[in-house]
Amino acid sequence: MNVNGKNYRTIWMEGSIIRMIDQVLLPYKFEIIDIKNLEELIKSINNMNIRGAGAIGVAGGYGLAQAALQAKDENLLKDIKFAADKLKSSRPTAQNLFTTIDCLLEILNKEKNPENARNAIANEAQRFADKDADACKKIGMYGASLIKNGANISTHCNAGWLAFVDWGSALSPIYYAVKEGKKNIFVYVDETRPRGQGSKLTAWELHQENIPHTIIADNVTGALMWKGKIDLVIVGADRIARNGDVANKIGTYSSAVVAKENNIPFYVAAPVTTIDPNCESGKFIPIEERDQDETLFAHGVDDAGNFTRVRLAPAGCTALNIGFDVTPAKYIKGIITENGIFPASKKGINDILKGKVNA
Amino acid sequence: MNVNGKNYRTIWMEGSIIRMIDQVLLPYKFEIIDIKNLEELIKSINNMNIRGAGAIGVAGGYGLAQAALQAKDENLLKDIKFAADKLKSSRPTAQNLFTTIDCLLEILNKEKNPENARNAIANEAQRFADKDADACKKIGMYGASLIKNGANISTHCNAGWLAFVDWGSALSPIYYAVKEGKKNIFVYVDETRPRGQGSKLTAWELHQENIPHTIIADNVTGALMWKGKIDLVIVGADRIARNGDVANKIGTYSSAVVAKENNIPFYVAAPVTTIDPNCESGKFIPIEERDQDETLFAHGVDDAGNFTRVRLAPAGCTALNIGFDVTPAKYIKGIITENGIFPASKKGINDILKGKVNA
Repeated sequence: MNVNGKNYRTIWMEGSIIRMIDQVLLPYKFEIIDIKNLEELIKSINNMNIRGAGAIGVAGGYGLAQAALQAKDENLLKDIKFAADKLKSSRPTAQNLFTTIDCLLEILNKEKNPENARNAIANEAQRFADKDADACKKIGMYGASLIKNGANISTHCNAGWLAFVDWGSALSPIYYAVKEGKKNIFVYVDETRPRGQGSKLTAWELHQENIPHTIIADNVTGALMWKGKIDLVIVGADRIARNGDVANKIGTYSSAVVAKENNIPFYVAAPVTTIDPNCESGKFIPIEERDQDETLFAHGVDDAGNFTRVRLAPAGCTALNIGFDVTPAKYIKGIITENGIFPASKKGINDILKGKVNA
Repeated sequence: MNVNGKNYRTIWMEGSIIRMIDQVLLPYKFEIIDIKNLEELIKSINNMNIRGAGAIGVAGGYGLAQAALQAKDENLLKDIKFAADKLKSSRPTAQNLFTTIDCLLEILNKEKNPENARNAIANEAQRFADKDADACKKIGMYGASLIKNGANISTHCNAGWLAFVDWGSALSPIYYAVKEGKKNIFVYVDETRPRGQGSKLTAWELHQENIPHTIIADNVTGALMWKGKIDLVIVGADRIARNGDVANKIGTYSSAVVAKENNIPFYVAAPVTTIDPNCESGKFIPIEERDQDETLFAHGVDDAGNFTRVRLAPAGCTALNIGFDVTPAKYIKGIITENGIFPASKKGINDILKGKVNA
């Protein structure tokens, strides 16, 4: 997508170097980080230099590819498995990471020649990245059918192209609709405390793409729904269970409940890799608890333009920082995938997993 | 209530000087501001050095008293009416301000002797402050009956003693229950973006009173309700309509909807002065829209202890900062007043206005 008029992906590989847009510096600075080894990659995921379900999945794939390209023949198997374990334990909630790594590991069962295995993993990691971009574009195509001229759309967190390789999930239908020529589309951007991926990343993306929007505190969303100011909600997903329950950024659940109460259609947009075929329902999805300092402090730039943080709470007070919540399927009108829009139900998820296309 | 072991009210008068705790500096610094004239008072209300429905009402009363005490005999009527108009237009949503000022203005219709009128207004303003403190204590007494040992309570914004003269509304039942000897009460404190009155003021109050609590991003409340971690919600109110609809800090509506969805009792605690007898329903309550910078920035202290603000959003992006929302009566289990707990309904509000006591 567009950054100062130039086309970028969120993450890509050049030789054995992984390059990524540094999302910690956004929206203040646009910089590319070069990741030279596994340790740097894990650190970039933990620090959220790269974040978002799809982008983390692709980072995991590139991480295995990097390990494969850097490993000596005799250590190939060991190094790749070590990288897989490390990467899988970096973020517990997002499914795409597990899906991608498990697929790449299967190559090792089939391909015993080290050089062939190395190339196969690198090619497959790249194919996953390209597939992610392609899937997101198709999500946009299918999702755009839900967006009318003049639509006021609410979204939460950042499920834009920065959360994937390109296009994004929840924002992709908006980008697609605008490119199709739909008019007067307006986006209400939840700031998404504590990390502020809405005000920092979604607003930045929409600003770069010239799509009209305004930032609101997370508390404002419900009031706008009650006032009839929101026509449609589209959010992303970190993991989707077999019954259609969805784990996504904390705050999604409340948005879905209030949307339903006000008869506003609430959609989840996610590539098929987000589905966890081994997870029966949302209550089995592991939910990441993050450092309390994310809630006790806010990070940004001061009036002089220096990066700094400010403490928001009394010294000595604690915070509970739950990263994700589960939205039960009954609040979700549909799941927008690269194969079309499906109901959030056991049957809907089964159809998706069987490869059905709802064109 | 308690500040470093000493008893304080939020606002009080000494001679013609109004003294108040500076709530903009909390929780970082505890300082008292001296307000010497109307201009300073209006500024302190606009800047939110003093805020909260009850405290603003008492500030309005003291403001008229100060104007009366400072006016020459021949200007008394004019100066008081000028002060009344200025104060009434300082914050549009909180009802207590209007109730207090209108009551004090009635004195001028009865008492024509300037010296008598001056003293009557000053005495009545003080009586309003004392009545506010007394009402809040009684709210605590009635509300404490809802709190069991081991209760996990959610509250939003600050409806503690800082929002009134003493005790508070939503927090008063918690203070009262603890003073009664109830055990293991725990409070989840919504941070309440954009101004952060939860993390800054409610957490500070509870910390000073040694009541166990933790701060959560506003997005976390719903997830905790879904997980069964919250037994009871108590919030304050800025204005209550004749049908039981409640205007309160933005985010209250979503909390109420999600509480109802999870069968968690949702109570509003407010003195009777919060009811607007001229307002038929919530849709007629004027809702304040505040400066977008409150959402685009966060204020606090940096690691060196200096007050500063950080920008949270891309330069050039806008925010929509709605200060309050309306919670329809159907989501509210009851309204806790100084005369007992009443249903949030036309009949309940009528009973309150008729002076009924639900002991």
